[in-house]
Amino acid sequence: MKKARLIVADSENCADMLYATGFNASDPFVYYAVDGREFVVVSQLELARAKSECHSHIKVNDMDDYFSKSDKGRGLKDLVSKVAQVVGVDLWEVPPDFPLIYADALRKLNYNITCVDSLFFPQREIKTEDEINKVIDAMAITELGMKRAIQVLEESEICDNCVVWHKKTLTSEVLRAEIEVELIRNGASPFHTIVASGKQSAEPHNTGSGVILANQPIVIDIFPRVVKNGYWGDMTRTFVKGRASNEVRLAFRAVKEARDNAKAVIKAGITGEQAHKVAFDTLKQHGFETGQKDGVYFGFTHGLGHGVGLEIHEEPRVSPRNKDVLKIGQIITVEPGLYYPEWGGIRLEDIGVVRDDHFQCFNTVATELEIP
Amino acid sequence: MKKARLIVADSENCADMLYATGFNASDPFVYYAVDGREFVVVSQLELARAKSECHSHIKVNDMDDYFSKSDKGRGLKDLVSKVAQVVGVDLWEVPPDFPLIYADALRKLNYNITCVDSLFFPQREIKTEDEINKVIDAMAITELGMKRAIQVLEESEICDNCVVWHKKTLTSEVLRAEIEVELIRNGASPFHTIVASGKQSAEPHNTGSGVILANQPIVIDIFPRVVKNGYWGDMTRTFVKGRASNEVRLAFRAVKEARDNAKAVIKAGITGEQAHKVAFDTLKQHGFETGQKDGVYFGFTHGLGHGVGLEIHEEPRVSPRNKDVLKIGQIITVEPGLYYPEWGGIRLEDIGVVRDDHFQCFNTVATELEIP
Repeated sequence: MKKARLIVADSENCADMLYATGFNASDPFVYYAVDGREFVVVSQLELARAKSECHSHIKVNDMDDYFSKSDKGRGLKDLVSKVAQVVGVDLWEVPPDFPLIYADALRKLNYNITCVDSLFFPQREIKTEDEINKVIDAMAITELGMKRAIQVLEESEICDNCVVWHKKTLTSEVLRAEIEVELIRNGASPFHTIVASGKQSAEPHNTGSGVILANQPIVIDIFPRVVKNGYWGDMTRTFVKGRASNEVRLAFRAVKEARDNAKAVIKAGITGEQAHKVAFDTLKQHGFETGQKDGVYFGFTHGLGHGVGLEIHEEPRVSPRNKDVLKIGQIITVEPGLYYPEWGGIRLEDIGVVRDDHFQCFNTVATELEIP
Repeated sequence: MKKARLIVADSENCADMLYATGFNASDPFVYYAVDGREFVVVSQLELARAKSECHSHIKVNDMDDYFSKSDKGRGLKDLVSKVAQVVGVDLWEVPPDFPLIYADALRKLNYNITCVDSLFFPQREIKTEDEINKVIDAMAITELGMKRAIQVLEESEICDNCVVWHKKTLTSEVLRAEIEVELIRNGASPFHTIVASGKQSAEPHNTGSGVILANQPIVIDIFPRVVKNGYWGDMTRTFVKGRASNEVRLAFRAVKEARDNAKAVIKAGITGEQAHKVAFDTLKQHGFETGQKDGVYFGFTHGLGHGVGLEIHEEPRVSPRNKDVLKIGQIITVEPGLYYPEWGGIRLEDIGVVRDDHFQCFNTVATELEIP
């Protein structure tokens, strides 16, 4: 049976839509492919911009052309039905996150809607050299943000267990702003940059707030998106302003070795599970246990890494649950961590591309714990 | 039949999820409500953070508790099926954008999945005073960004039809960065701030690039999201650095009057269509036509405004297609514009809340065209 493919989404949040069209729009629109040809359908508001920004092989249509004067409903749901009528194909393939409201509307009109139960564009997982360069560019900006954080901490002084910068107590909010300003000025948009100190750093996704504590770990996780093309960067360092406790120093050394050991074994053909295990075993050899106590998890509580591209978290997952082998051209993070509610966390994250016989890391910023 | 309600989404992009839970997470998780009780289910990675950030009436569960040791699949699709089994209700109500993959998985297990064909939380349209204050705070930050833009343009000089700031030719990219730095420093995250000059300003959603032209319109549309609570601000001004042409000055005067006339009539009980018509008629009285030529639209090519809250574009739409009356507590933009491919565009956007007998505008920045 002849098949057409359909996406209804905005392209700011739906990476498949951005990948398919190259057109960045914050309001939802329609993309469809049939007989080897691809189309987008947008409102008149977006028509000129879509024509100039979409990939050259895509035909841009005006949604008003799908309606006749007598049509009253002109919402997206009405448009989707009109598109299906115009195309005249009974079987439509849609992505996993296709909105149910449109699927049910089409099914009511007796179209056969099948949902792809994996990647809608499997090729998104394997980056072209052009895409690799875009992530390398994103990482260059990300590292400017990290260098700014290091500079602020270097310029700061310690006073009563607090960190003082420009005569004011340094907070997560201020340090985050300094990092994000650097990202903005270099063409990338940040959101929820993590600057978490002390016990806050024990929660991997705690963005951090309030006073930054001296002599305690500060986890800084920076993941901006390049405005002009939508590709992400992602990196994490952990610092101590002043002197780290023995416990923190040992944990840092273990995490650094775990990251570097994992990076050393990653290449095409190794599984996500195997890469994770190398890091996990390194941490265990250093005496750091992973487990759960009274409903709170501690130790290495997350997967080793994830794919990065037009989404900050995308395939492949590099974790115990991924038994598939890594493939040439996949861009992944390598980010082991240790988290203990009693004192906080350590996470170190690099990123790079899986090559035939090695892992090509994009990071250039050194991995040092203490900033005097 | 007893009914439960379900959302599966991240809360950074899904406003319903953020509204329901108060928990900001960039990875998808599960929310469900049954028998007047509400739950979220998250991975161990998010457990501690979810417990501290979710609304107090929500019970936070660990996804691992829904699986038994023999369960192999532990993805979100598996989790959704497990949740349905545990809850034991046959009828599930989900939002319009519910991902088809989960709906089909549940239907395969003979659950009855109905998709709400309107707002999943109708109360989101009507803002509480607490929400109104959050948007007022967002607008205060937004206006700081606009004031920064005005300051840069005031400090600039004109040289050969270009604008020169700090001895360099001012570009959309530089001015955008100056605006966004101000937003970042004040706790809001921008994305795709529009700074479009000359003919670029004729496309309402063109973000703008390259040299800013003197003596021509510069449309600046700023819509940042407050990091700590997810509410948006939104405002637009149009400036000319130097002297505007007679045509631009007349268009500006018409748009300003259209905006102010619309603001003067907006109150509870007027329809979106009526409010739009007031602005449209004002523009027409000033001699500005709306239409289409060779597939390119010109004039007042979009609706008068839209709701703003946890989404930048949400209900209600203030446009010819909305025959419903505006209600007390709705926060809407009022943003007429005129766009002509020959010379560019003018848009002026204010925001405020619909009150019983008037429109309470949140803007304080004046509406002036020329910056000498």
